Amino acid sequence: MYNIPLNIVLIGSGNLATQLGLKLHASNHKIIQVFSKTIANAIKLGSLLNATPTDNLRDLKDADLYIISVKDDILPDLIKNISLTGKVLIHTSGSVNLDVFNLSPNTVGVFYPLQSFSKLKTPNWEALPICIETSNKELEVLLCNLAISITAKPYLLDSQQRRAIHIAAVFASNFSNYMYTIANDILKDKDIPFEILRPLIMETTQKVMMNLPEEMQTGPAYRGDKSIINNHSNELAFNTNYQEIYNLISKAILDKYKI
Amino acid sequence: MYNIPLNIVLIGSGNLATQLGLKLHASNHKIIQVFSKTIANAIKLGSLLNATPTDNLRDLKDADLYIISVKDDILPDLIKNISLTGKVLIHTSGSVNLDVFNLSPNTVGVFYPLQSFSKLKTPNWEALPICIETSNKELEVLLCNLAISITAKPYLLDSQQRRAIHIAAVFASNFSNYMYTIANDILKDKDIPFEILRPLIMETTQKVMMNLPEEMQTGPAYRGDKSIINNHSNELAFNTNYQEIYNLISKAILDKYKI
Repeated sequence: MYNIPLNIVLIGSGNLATQLGLKLHASNHKIIQVFSKTIANAIKLGSLLNATPTDNLRDLKDADLYIISVKDDILPDLIKNISLTGKVLIHTSGSVNLDVFNLSPNTVGVFYPLQSFSKLKTPNWEALPICIETSNKELEVLLCNLAISITAKPYLLDSQQRRAIHIAAVFASNFSNYMYTIANDILKDKDIPFEILRPLIMETTQKVMMNLPEEMQTGPAYRGDKSIINNHSNELAFNTNYQEIYNLISKAILDKYKI
Repeated sequence: MYNIPLNIVLIGSGNLATQLGLKLHASNHKIIQVFSKTIANAIKLGSLLNATPTDNLRDLKDADLYIISVKDDILPDLIKNISLTGKVLIHTSGSVNLDVFNLSPNTVGVFYPLQSFSKLKTPNWEALPICIETSNKELEVLLCNLAISITAKPYLLDSQQRRAIHIAAVFASNFSNYMYTIANDILKDKDIPFEILRPLIMETTQKVMMNLPEEMQTGPAYRGDKSIINNHSNELAFNTNYQEIYNLISKAILDKYKI
């Protein structure tokens, strides 16, 4: 196979494609081409990466590695429309199995960085977990080295494990952020600024950086304080969604800690 | 009223009493006495604070300020049993109203530090929000100065606002920690270490340090990706509590963002 640094064609121009492309570029890999079905996006990202833009999948250049970083639902069709043979193709999705490549006459793998990306915020790549899956041992080594070359941390995990991680990430990131949103809505209702919660949120997070969350649980439900739980639930009557979420999570915590 | 530094009697020896006592002591206030109904606890905390221990509420020394930091449910009875007159008494609870002091012949207030405390971990007091309530203007100034003297940040809020903050804190801290616990349970089931989620959790938190959470929402429910939501929900069949929580929060996010 190939040696690092690699010549790479980047297929996609979304949040993950952008941040991964920028980091690969900054780590001395050569992004030779950027594909997007919207040419303006390919041109925009291409200019940042010193890469040729294209909106034509039949026009892909010869490269060591093709990184496909597009929305999950268009991934199967896009792979069908790639007319390469004997090349190395990887996708970056948490929830799409390796077998999406089953009919592809190429060496294939998955390279899923477990982080929430946005176009404008540079993520901290240091020790960022990258879930790697491939049935090709040589590619496995290459993808591990690729992860290390961008200071990330490779984990070898199969599709089933990656799917579990994706669900876990929904709870750990999307749902915890939604808990902050509910908190902010409750505060807004009483003219209190969100900033008042920030030290508590950071402290809660710092605790699970060193400990397991089940050992760090606190609060009325953990203490089994049903009178506070009832008071809180009654005060949430102004929003039945929030009230229902409060009741359900409190009950689950009571159940878990058998109080 | 009095000038800072103050002579203080600390009533209570739990997590908050311990950390607040240590910080007040380190900030040149004099903790002259520590009360706990369990004398061993009073002796233990007293030795850290260079304070006389007592388990007798009739034995409280003369002080500028009496800080009552005990469990919410014993607060009313404890206040009844304090036989002081013309003194300054405050409690530190998020969910108990100022009117718990209604029959007390003293100047009274609330001084609620919005943080999750544990005995062993020193919190970051810098800019830590402290919710202050009192109907006495002089005491209000004193409590603001007391907060500032320990590098914290005073907020003047009434009992209704403090109750809202307490509910908001349950979502922002207790429930987000529980989301991490669910995530870890999902990972454990597939032999994946919790550490793999830590960078994502920290990134999610850092985003809301600078932005509002409703602007930072991501994930399948936010995108309206019902096919991923259904897949995730099906994979959670092994734990109906978690499945129900997944469905309810996903639905709430779909509702909120009208997708």
